[in-house]
Amino acid sequence: MLYFNSDYMEGAHPLILKRLHDINFDKNVGYGLDPYCESARKKIREACQAPDAEVHFLVGGTQTNMLVIDAMCRFNDGVIAANTGHINVHESGAIESCGHKVIAVDEVDGKINIPALEQYLVAFYKETSEVGIEHYVMPRAIYISTPTELGTIYSLAELEQLRAICDTYGLYLYIDGARMGYGLAADTDVSLPDIARLADAFYIGGTKVGALFGEAVVITNPDITFTRGLIKHRGAMVAKGWLLGVQFDTLFTDDLYLRISRNAVSQAMRIKQALENKGYKAFVDSPTNQQFYVVDNATLERLQQHVNYSYISPADDGHSLVRFCTSWATTDEQVEALLALL
Amino acid sequence: MLYFNSDYMEGAHPLILKRLHDINFDKNVGYGLDPYCESARKKIREACQAPDAEVHFLVGGTQTNMLVIDAMCRFNDGVIAANTGHINVHESGAIESCGHKVIAVDEVDGKINIPALEQYLVAFYKETSEVGIEHYVMPRAIYISTPTELGTIYSLAELEQLRAICDTYGLYLYIDGARMGYGLAADTDVSLPDIARLADAFYIGGTKVGALFGEAVVITNPDITFTRGLIKHRGAMVAKGWLLGVQFDTLFTDDLYLRISRNAVSQAMRIKQALENKGYKAFVDSPTNQQFYVVDNATLERLQQHVNYSYISPADDGHSLVRFCTSWATTDEQVEALLALL
Amino acid sequence: MLYFNSDYMEGAHPLILKRLHDINFDKNVGYGLDPYCESARKKIREACQAPDAEVHFLVGGTQTNMLVIDAMCRFNDGVIAANTGHINVHESGAIESCGHKVIAVDEVDGKINIPALEQYLVAFYKETSEVGIEHYVMPRAIYISTPTELGTIYSLAELEQLRAICDTYGLYLYIDGARMGYGLAADTDVSLPDIARLADAFYIGGTKVGALFGEAVVITNPDITFTRGLIKHRGAMVAKGWLLGVQFDTLFTDDLYLRISRNAVSQAMRIKQALENKGYKAFVDSPTNQQFYVVDNATLERLQQHVNYSYISPADDGHSLVRFCTSWATTDEQVEALLALL
Amino acid sequence: MLYFNSDYMEGAHPLILKRLHDINFDKNVGYGLDPYCESARKKIREACQAPDAEVHFLVGGTQTNMLVIDAMCRFNDGVIAANTGHINVHESGAIESCGHKVIAVDEVDGKINIPALEQYLVAFYKETSEVGIEHYVMPRAIYISTPTELGTIYSLAELEQLRAICDTYGLYLYIDGARMGYGLAADTDVSLPDIARLADAFYIGGTKVGALFGEAVVITNPDITFTRGLIKHRGAMVAKGWLLGVQFDTLFTDDLYLRISRNAVSQAMRIKQALENKGYKAFVDSPTNQQFYVVDNATLERLQQHVNYSYISPADDGHSLVRFCTSWATTDEQVEALLALL
Repeated sequence: MLYFNSDYMEGAHPLILKRLHDINFDKNVGYGLDPYCESARKKIREACQAPDAEVHFLVGGTQTNMLVIDAMCRFNDGVIAANTGHINVHESGAIESCGHKVIAVDEVDGKINIPALEQYLVAFYKETSEVGIEHYVMPRAIYISTPTELGTIYSLAELEQLRAICDTYGLYLYIDGARMGYGLAADTDVSLPDIARLADAFYIGGTKVGALFGEAVVITNPDITFTRGLIKHRGAMVAKGWLLGVQFDTLFTDDLYLRISRNAVSQAMRIKQALENKGYKAFVDSPTNQQFYVVDNATLERLQQHVNYSYISPADDGHSLVRFCTSWATTDEQVEALLALL
Repeated sequence: MLYFNSDYMEGAHPLILKRLHDINFDKNVGYGLDPYCESARKKIREACQAPDAEVHFLVGGTQTNMLVIDAMCRFNDGVIAANTGHINVHESGAIESCGHKVIAVDEVDGKINIPALEQYLVAFYKETSEVGIEHYVMPRAIYISTPTELGTIYSLAELEQLRAICDTYGLYLYIDGARMGYGLAADTDVSLPDIARLADAFYIGGTKVGALFGEAVVITNPDITFTRGLIKHRGAMVAKGWLLGVQFDTLFTDDLYLRISRNAVSQAMRIKQALENKGYKAFVDSPTNQQFYVVDNATLERLQQHVNYSYISPADDGHSLVRFCTSWATTDEQVEALLALL
Repeated sequence: MLYFNSDYMEGAHPLILKRLHDINFDKNVGYGLDPYCESARKKIREACQAPDAEVHFLVGGTQTNMLVIDAMCRFNDGVIAANTGHINVHESGAIESCGHKVIAVDEVDGKINIPALEQYLVAFYKETSEVGIEHYVMPRAIYISTPTELGTIYSLAELEQLRAICDTYGLYLYIDGARMGYGLAADTDVSLPDIARLADAFYIGGTKVGALFGEAVVITNPDITFTRGLIKHRGAMVAKGWLLGVQFDTLFTDDLYLRISRNAVSQAMRIKQALENKGYKAFVDSPTNQQFYVVDNATLERLQQHVNYSYISPADDGHSLVRFCTSWATTDEQVEALLALL
Repeated sequence: MLYFNSDYMEGAHPLILKRLHDINFDKNVGYGLDPYCESARKKIREACQAPDAEVHFLVGGTQTNMLVIDAMCRFNDGVIAANTGHINVHESGAIESCGHKVIAVDEVDGKINIPALEQYLVAFYKETSEVGIEHYVMPRAIYISTPTELGTIYSLAELEQLRAICDTYGLYLYIDGARMGYGLAADTDVSLPDIARLADAFYIGGTKVGALFGEAVVITNPDITFTRGLIKHRGAMVAKGWLLGVQFDTLFTDDLYLRISRNAVSQAMRIKQALENKGYKAFVDSPTNQQFYVVDNATLERLQQHVNYSYISPADDGHSLVRFCTSWATTDEQVEALLALL
């Protein structure tokens, strides 16, 4: 059986497992105060060209989104997201569990529809200037993910537009980078230092990109109060914090993070090319490791004898929307076996 | 100057003020355990034909929505509302302050678009049956207001449809009755016992209908745990609870609540008729005390020398959307003065 | 029957009722933006000699404590209180409902035991300097009430000591003034300007001192972010906000607040004197309107035919602890009738 | 250098690392729905002799305490704990972050003082029967840890007493088993099935007992609603849930959990014996892997050239309280080296 369901089906990159094995009986101090975390923080700051950034390590993406947004928002503050945004639809109300509303705006291919965003902001400030802002959820931050839930990525121009909007309206820009590696490894004009320069906070995803688990939060705007006390208060502090440090230290040594990301993307591009060649219809044009295609149901029935993928929804009559997803661990053999089936 | 801005610009019905004056130096027990509250509860149960309903008195509408929805929801539960719903746009994230997401669905004239609601529910249960419901905000209740924020009301058939949907999907039906009197006094086939029969919980608004302040929560579904401890925990317990009891006891004596509501509606109908006669264009066909009209800006400029109204937004070129709002206290003289200006 | 149960058994001072009656049909803007609130804010700032203070009006004491402490605290911050403090024992976990722990320290006669407080702080900072502060609830504010729940008051020297401790440890000082009038009217060296000068935030209680309901929050430290959005977010915004404004405007006109407070205190002193003369044993030496006495059960049985009081707890064998409480409305006749019974 | 600071300084038992290595490139479904989790759940139910228990896997102890207590409590409910309880002093207000107060009662050697607990409950129900329970935090559960933060353990008789108190007062009994293995491996009359029989919910700690990370929550009382949606809502769902399953499956195969726990305890007993022989004074008589001793400062100064331990606090003049802590990984050589230094 082949598996193209998701990018979190395997364990960790072998170099990570090896280091965990090698230091297993060393004695480490807890809670992220160990030298591995310190080294990883340093390497991440360097990779981001953000020497003053604050870096914290957390376990998972929903947890990370919760904590960063809670650090950005108080009282009636809320966070703007595309209506397809992960925090709006797949996180079980975790943002709301901290008291903050997700303000959904229209999307295009999984990305915030920037004109719709501007229209919302103009209307919001016009309306509240009449009625008083206290009756409304106050937009405090814009949440985007890149790659998005549909595999698409923001261009540099789009990120700069969002930055300008944030500057105009006094908003933070927060980027969910659960799959950041796969975005950076794609055909893109955006680099990690661009992300660090344009966002006020973001996270570099480990869980889906080579780690057993873990996300690295990077706070570049010192106005954002993000404390270790907040992490513990929300139950997110890991006793053996060095497990996170070792993983990110490995991922940010010799460019491993980007190198393994490139594998996922190039395997996805092979699949995409093959699907296009065979006349399958893309749901969205994704340059990253997630490929969404509309497949006729007869083909699907045939495929599912041999392949696992993510079934999304029925599309039109007789067709369905499915996702093929590669990862850092996807092999040539797996892809070739898939291609043979298409 | 004339004021048609809103229905909470005056104090209380004189009979209420008189009773507050008469009992001012009596000694009452606190926290809603007094005989006035008890009497008011009894009269409300009778008016609702709901002898087993639980009745609590709270200060304001946002507070009431927060508490009832918090009582209905746990964990990742959320509440469905029209995207124009008061809890979705005018309550400053109060529902989210209790950890619960407002799930917005399309509206028609301020009411939930019932086909869109059904489509959402079908899609939700289809999607979560594949992926696992734990990643989603779980719909637990439907929130509606009647009259809505646009003055429209649900028909009996619509309420019964919503009840059936709730029964199918295991949802509570909660009705925000901030202006309930003005809905019951309108040309409608819905009575208070219908509301009590079809909703699992609702509130009868006092603040906008004759009281200084206060809302009466009615819980008809005993599965909903709504406790005095919850009220206090959220800072909503009033020390001199009899102030609420006396007001609702007065409003539910000799049908005062409905009688004064009728005044607001009949004054609004006079204004509506006059506006229609003069060729003004209604934004929505409202049978209650709020009338939304699209007025050309020259007329508005002239009117605002003499009248206050709620300015909503620019409509198209040269026109604006405004609201004229009557209340239980609106007089013939005030309405005639307005009509003379149109 | 006589009633000395509490100080929130009557309605409002007649001057307040009269003004509410007089303006009942005036048209007011909502949400505390009316001229009565503005006037009341001005008078309160003057009475406090705090021209830059921010003043907000809320409905009740628990609500006020919740909101001010939520404005002071973030994340793992907590608030220190005497273990008998109202927020620690009588508010149903309202502070915790906002995510903040109440850190209880020892008390003496209802007041924080200052040496115990200092000992806690020294130990806390010593311990956390070893282990890392992120595992602990971080003290951010000290909550006191004056008068306390036992009727005692802090002296100027004690308040200055607390201020110095707050300055040393970077804490806010917050004073719950539910009965502030009765403290200021007592034999004390503390004035309202002293309170305003020494506290970072406090509230002046109206519910127990002449108003139907309402508390005036005074924020003197501009570092504390207390917004109208916070008020609405927690469901505490009153639509007809002028009801609060009118009440506090009346209370702070011609020194009414203090004048009516003096009545409660002088009536209480008469009762206290009589109890002492008859050999009753005070549980605590209170100079304000609450008198706690240990009474033998035979006497209690006799009294309760004619008097209501607050029963607190059995004391030792054959005696009980009870409270006699006066208010701004207590009359000479009522006190004389009580004295005749003792 | 020797390290006796804590029991979470090493990675995982080699058998765990080996299995993680062996399955690293297998494709697993996420979120704890994999066969390893299923197998681990089955083995834990068997070890607990609790065939109907619900078992969930979480990352850390604070997170686990938060979620279980949030599942037990609503509104103004709170949880009783010893004032030295972990949730009361070392979890940064995580319980309060979910809105629930920790009600602290006296302790003896780190355990709840049972007579003090009963006294609190009797007084609470007496007081609230007079005043109304809605003003109070309502005790809903008793939290204990065994072993406690001081290394002591509850006897079977004590657990049965607590169970009886819970039955009398309608409370849940929740046991924090962060170090449960070290308690079961001690000289005790309590078995895991006893824990499962007497508690309504508890957790079996992995982080401190052989796992990289992870705690197994066991819910034996079906009245407690603990859902996967709750886990996700609080940001605690792990994408690669099988990492937890594999670890607990390994720990509960061939009694590994207990076998490795015994090592920690027997090493601790050797240290304890040596300390006693040399005349060191125990702070508390602990039968588990944590040993608290009062050591004179000269000795400490000499020791700390060679040994790391947990420094707790200055005791009396010239002495300090320190903790020596062993783990599943502590070796004979390490202990002998320590003994040579004493």
